[in-house]
Amino acid sequence: MEQKKWVDSQVAAGVDALSRKFFVGPGDDERFKKWGEQAMELALDWLKNPEGKKIHADISLQDLAKLFAETRLPEEGLSIEEVFAECKTMILDNSVRINNPRYIGHMTTVVPWFSVVVDILITSINQNQVKIETALASSFVERQTIAWIHSLVFKKPKHYYDKVIQERGVTLGNMTSGGTVGNLTALAAARETRLPGIRQQGFFKVFADSGYKDVKILVSRRMHYSITKSAALLGFGEESVEQIPVDHNNRIRLDLLQAKINELKAANVLILAVIGIAGTTETGNIDPLDKIAEICEREAIWYHVDAAWGGALLLSEELGARLKGIERADSVVLDGHKLFYLPMNHSMVLFKNEDSLNRWRHNAKYIIRKGSVDIGQTSLEGSRRFNALKLWFSLKMLGRSGYHLLLKKSLHLTDLLTALLDKDPDFERCSNPELCILTYRFIPNRVKLELSEVMKRGDTERENQINERINEVNVELQKRQRERGESFISRTMLESTPYQAEIVVLRAVLTNLLTKSVFLEEILEEQRRLGFEIIAELG
Amino acid sequence: MEQKKWVDSQVAAGVDALSRKFFVGPGDDERFKKWGEQAMELALDWLKNPEGKKIHADISLQDLAKLFAETRLPEEGLSIEEVFAECKTMILDNSVRINNPRYIGHMTTVVPWFSVVVDILITSINQNQVKIETALASSFVERQTIAWIHSLVFKKPKHYYDKVIQERGVTLGNMTSGGTVGNLTALAAARETRLPGIRQQGFFKVFADSGYKDVKILVSRRMHYSITKSAALLGFGEESVEQIPVDHNNRIRLDLLQAKINELKAANVLILAVIGIAGTTETGNIDPLDKIAEICEREAIWYHVDAAWGGALLLSEELGARLKGIERADSVVLDGHKLFYLPMNHSMVLFKNEDSLNRWRHNAKYIIRKGSVDIGQTSLEGSRRFNALKLWFSLKMLGRSGYHLLLKKSLHLTDLLTALLDKDPDFERCSNPELCILTYRFIPNRVKLELSEVMKRGDTERENQINERINEVNVELQKRQRERGESFISRTMLESTPYQAEIVVLRAVLTNLLTKSVFLEEILEEQRRLGFEIIAELG
Repeated sequence: MEQKKWVDSQVAAGVDALSRKFFVGPGDDERFKKWGEQAMELALDWLKNPEGKKIHADISLQDLAKLFAETRLPEEGLSIEEVFAECKTMILDNSVRINNPRYIGHMTTVVPWFSVVVDILITSINQNQVKIETALASSFVERQTIAWIHSLVFKKPKHYYDKVIQERGVTLGNMTSGGTVGNLTALAAARETRLPGIRQQGFFKVFADSGYKDVKILVSRRMHYSITKSAALLGFGEESVEQIPVDHNNRIRLDLLQAKINELKAANVLILAVIGIAGTTETGNIDPLDKIAEICEREAIWYHVDAAWGGALLLSEELGARLKGIERADSVVLDGHKLFYLPMNHSMVLFKNEDSLNRWRHNAKYIIRKGSVDIGQTSLEGSRRFNALKLWFSLKMLGRSGYHLLLKKSLHLTDLLTALLDKDPDFERCSNPELCILTYRFIPNRVKLELSEVMKRGDTERENQINERINEVNVELQKRQRERGESFISRTMLESTPYQAEIVVLRAVLTNLLTKSVFLEEILEEQRRLGFEIIAELG
Repeated sequence: MEQKKWVDSQVAAGVDALSRKFFVGPGDDERFKKWGEQAMELALDWLKNPEGKKIHADISLQDLAKLFAETRLPEEGLSIEEVFAECKTMILDNSVRINNPRYIGHMTTVVPWFSVVVDILITSINQNQVKIETALASSFVERQTIAWIHSLVFKKPKHYYDKVIQERGVTLGNMTSGGTVGNLTALAAARETRLPGIRQQGFFKVFADSGYKDVKILVSRRMHYSITKSAALLGFGEESVEQIPVDHNNRIRLDLLQAKINELKAANVLILAVIGIAGTTETGNIDPLDKIAEICEREAIWYHVDAAWGGALLLSEELGARLKGIERADSVVLDGHKLFYLPMNHSMVLFKNEDSLNRWRHNAKYIIRKGSVDIGQTSLEGSRRFNALKLWFSLKMLGRSGYHLLLKKSLHLTDLLTALLDKDPDFERCSNPELCILTYRFIPNRVKLELSEVMKRGDTERENQINERINEVNVELQKRQRERGESFISRTMLESTPYQAEIVVLRAVLTNLLTKSVFLEEILEEQRRLGFEIIAELG
């Protein structure tokens, strides 16, 4: 058969050279191996001796910006040697050393090295989870992993999971790219359950016919900002999120929650969902999940639990007890890239009722056909990589017992820091930690004593004056500490303290397995030094 | 200072053992290297000799399900040797060989091996793009990459990009986990621009006050299903998506688009957006982007272009001309994991106007602060891995010229298959390919001749009868071909043919750089054989 020839033989030669250079098969497989090993070396070099490296590089943001200011795209390819060199000097050397044991500031943490290893496999086989024709075994791995986590959360009997684990048409939940898409999915399912038809006919028509005056979502003030984002996207609006005040343990005030429910029901307002938090992003506290469940069951309200941070505790029988009541939720979000110790980014949204996700089941003619095993039928997202393998692999490598140890270590570190703070005259602890997060502030002992006096005599003006000043000091302290680059802690503001005004607090997230007690002592010493230095400067 | 001690020394010892085993630093770095190399070996073994391996393993879905039917989570960790062995025999051996040169069925394709290599770096440094405190250099890399692609799409002058590329507060677009989140973001921005206040106050109030009778989104019938998903999530409802018929080239009918706009405007319906497609998922055709731009400019309608599939053509000056008019769009979505030849999953949503994303700018007290350089301020997603490096790295490695060659090769393969089909009596081509996608069907020559006669005499009943039969044959053919596992092609249904009824078509996606013309010939031979076999069976 006569063939259409390449019009341009130069193009043909170029393609040939390219495929031999960069594709396994026609090419030189040794190159793949060699550069894979080089990348491993580079990664290892970056990862090792973490405590000896500055957390934030000594380069200013302005200078860093200049490194990436070339606006013209590369016309010709560079050699891999050149690109690797740029990766090292421009990027790796200027990346945040989140594995430094003195980095105790955000939820991003060091991960076991086998997570890197498993990503080599995920990317190499490049499956697309949307459809069995591009996924095969990976579809079943994802389903198995979801069933595992579902059984931890909802604790249905084993025979139930034996039946549904791989049952076509039964969907217990989705893996999502992150907690935000997870919360969005949960609230989308709640919307279609409570206001059926919006998916098809739109918000306006269905709501107008519903007879309700308004819609609200109830959650504590410690909620994650993805809740308002989801409410806004879904058409409820950010104002639909009623933030219920918390107690001094940063847990939702049940009395105020119940009062709000009564008020809204009396006013003919639909309560789309009540959201419990396990645990809060800012303070790591856990809402009284069973008490909220009671309310939701009695009031027939959709109950969502945002367990993005703390869900992994369920892996440990002992620690999982802290989340008692989570099994009564209608939907739950968990983040793999948090306390499951997976690399960025991996989340799950799970539903108690198999029907919940059916309300979003969809199909397309060329893909994810009706009646198929395609797991893309219920995901809000389309193409997705085989991230399920990360969690599957990690659960096999560590087992529940390994996770128990990792979590114990994090909680132990939190206890250590708590003890250090509680006996230190120049610090004040600002929350009771439950889940590896602790807030506190620097406040010199003499100021602390004065503040205590001021509080006793009810002098709010002076109280606010002092706190305003101490807020300033702690903002500056956190900034200088970050700029010095020896250690890192984040900060936030809390209203849930004994004070009238909002308080700036330092926020420690203690999930780095490499952190030791001596580092915690050093960090407090550094903060004390910086704090007094700033106070001296401010005069 | 006295320290709080571990209550349980066994736990302490367990943690210690775990950290030495699985974390770089305290542990044995050689283990990381060794198992990284093992993973490279495993990946290489999977990748090489792709044409010699069955695309879909010989295992039935039932038997595959049984491999992943254990519902109990692992209590104790397994050895890495065991988990690797399971990965190989249970997963890799049963994964879809998307790199087989006879796999020409979906958009999931073989990627250059350096993409695997770069993922080692991404996962090892585990940056979280949401915030500079967890990202640093990676924030700037993401911004640079977005500016690069923005300049290809919107073609603003160089001095503009020189100014904004790293300018705090200016956001040209987001990297997203996929095209769905990209389309969702674009339509969310359109919603807040055309119906400002929904984000804050909700759909019902704002729409009631708007005075509009209804809202519609206009797009051709060849749209991706993520458009209806997005419309449903945002509260417009799936019914708000008006699917405009296409011509025989699968391009939106401009006359019908204009007529629909006139009709809706006369009826006081808000047209939220008109969406152009470049190119269509099912047939790879490109809407007349400049003509749609003209209409949208004249009618003052938000213009979104879904260039998830074809956007990468802009990397080639020659081929990019096919997307003329895209620079007049208000928002554009492109998928890295398609013709940018990146692994799953990577997408971008870009905006012509810097203000568009400001309508979704958000902050949180503990993170992504106001006035910061945190790129999480405008993303609908929260935590995200450093996927930007994949694209940055790939653009540096291949350059625009390398991408030009990859795209030329794909288009050349499409030309080859077109030529083969056009001279083959037993096949009928069902679309004119523009972007590496081609649809056709098996139809024996004698049936083709009869159908042509029937059409001439206008016998619709007989026409439908024949097509129904041929549809059946092609459904079965695609299924058998997949089950044989030697080659793979997808299928869909099209109404945009000369026939009255919807036609089942085989859908070839020709992006695998390893595919050669001889494989295409073999695939057609296999299909002919299967086709006649099925016809004989059906009698």
